[in-house]
Amino acid sequence: MSRIADRLRELELVLPPPIQAPPGVVFPFQFVRVVGTRAVISGHGPQNADGSFAGPFGQVGAAVSQAEGYALARRTGLAILASLTRALGDLDRVTAWTRVFGMVNSAPGFNQHPSVINGMSDLIIEVFGPVVGAHARSAVGMAGLPFDLAVEIEGEVEIAPAT
Amino acid sequence: MSRIADRLRELELVLPPPIQAPPGVVFPFQFVRVVGTRAVISGHGPQNADGSFAGPFGQVGAAVSQAEGYALARRTGLAILASLTRALGDLDRVTAWTRVFGMVNSAPGFNQHPSVINGMSDLIIEVFGPVVGAHARSAVGMAGLPFDLAVEIEGEVEIAPAT
Amino acid sequence: MSRIADRLRELELVLPPPIQAPPGVVFPFQFVRVVGTRAVISGHGPQNADGSFAGPFGQVGAAVSQAEGYALARRTGLAILASLTRALGDLDRVTAWTRVFGMVNSAPGFNQHPSVINGMSDLIIEVFGPVVGAHARSAVGMAGLPFDLAVEIEGEVEIAPAT
Repeated sequence: MSRIADRLRELELVLPPPIQAPPGVVFPFQFVRVVGTRAVISGHGPQNADGSFAGPFGQVGAAVSQAEGYALARRTGLAILASLTRALGDLDRVTAWTRVFGMVNSAPGFNQHPSVINGMSDLIIEVFGPVVGAHARSAVGMAGLPFDLAVEIEGEVEIAPAT
Repeated sequence: MSRIADRLRELELVLPPPIQAPPGVVFPFQFVRVVGTRAVISGHGPQNADGSFAGPFGQVGAAVSQAEGYALARRTGLAILASLTRALGDLDRVTAWTRVFGMVNSAPGFNQHPSVINGMSDLIIEVFGPVVGAHARSAVGMAGLPFDLAVEIEGEVEIAPAT
Repeated sequence: MSRIADRLRELELVLPPPIQAPPGVVFPFQFVRVVGTRAVISGHGPQNADGSFAGPFGQVGAAVSQAEGYALARRTGLAILASLTRALGDLDRVTAWTRVFGMVNSAPGFNQHPSVINGMSDLIIEVFGPVVGAHARSAVGMAGLPFDLAVEIEGEVEIAPAT
């Protein structure tokens, strides 16, 4: 009985399958690296139901609207929850969110990065509640992201041993 | 008797009040997240005496000079010390600075990010001394920062239990 | 007898001397900060045999090609291994790579950051093997880097006590 899996079902949230790298691209790293009580989360982007990276692509504030950016940050959060589930077996092992580093592919002059990355923060508080889901965060503007992703997020959670 | 609070008075440094989000902006995260012996510090910007974000705003190397950038990085450090004080009760609990990640809103061609973020590094070494204040650091150029902040800094410190 | 030092000799890899700051630049931080079982790695760039920063300089996707970027990421990895050796005494103390944060000085439109930072990931897996060398990673595009470095990488490793 997984409390967080139940919560995801209650919210009708579906986690995507493993990340499909674009043709010719190699990812020689782990999407989640567990070291002791820490699970360190690689940069993730939003994913489609087949595991490929999801658009709209490009800069927030130009090709991508702020509202679309929020939705993409939320989908990036779902991709992260999927990677954590694969790495940890059960999301109930997450005892505390630690850090969220939210990167926005930024059009010149765009300055509302926090309202974009709120898509991630709101998701993890909805799913984990305000105590476990509380986290430190930055939300900042990048000159470019892989494959023209509009949003990329890395982070870290604290975990309990597997039972 | 707080040694670090005494040191701040000696240096005539005043810490700002809690961060005032700009109108309509929600910050659904913690400015400092304590997990075990770690205090993880969210992205902070320089603050005015009323808690609002401080200018000059814009890109270092264009609207903001390198010397202004240094002063803003120092003020960002004061904002971080204020958040740490609120989260920890007493800055004497900081046993080691761990990581400083200094982000500079960068005009095209600006390449002196370390000399800007030195405003933060110099501050924490002045306040905590060279042993506790020693830290790993990066200083890099961003395409944009929230609300056109010229500098944003996140980081981490190691802490002792509250006494 | 250091297993990793032997492995570096086997691969004919030579680590650079301490980083030489450009004239007039002060680095008031540690290139590796050891806190408990963690060694936190500051932002590093590629280095020449005399310790100075190595080119080609500028944006990947413009002045610097993607293949040159890969080679610079690999050289940045060697600079990091050199700093870790100086801080830890022996690279055999590294029990797990934890996090790699790869920053690419990005020309407008460049979107192949992962293939650049693979220069770092491939190196540490070659040197440490797939178990110790496994790591979480992000690879992203910056608006600027210090001294027009094409690549800068920070990270973290888990360490055993000195023997």
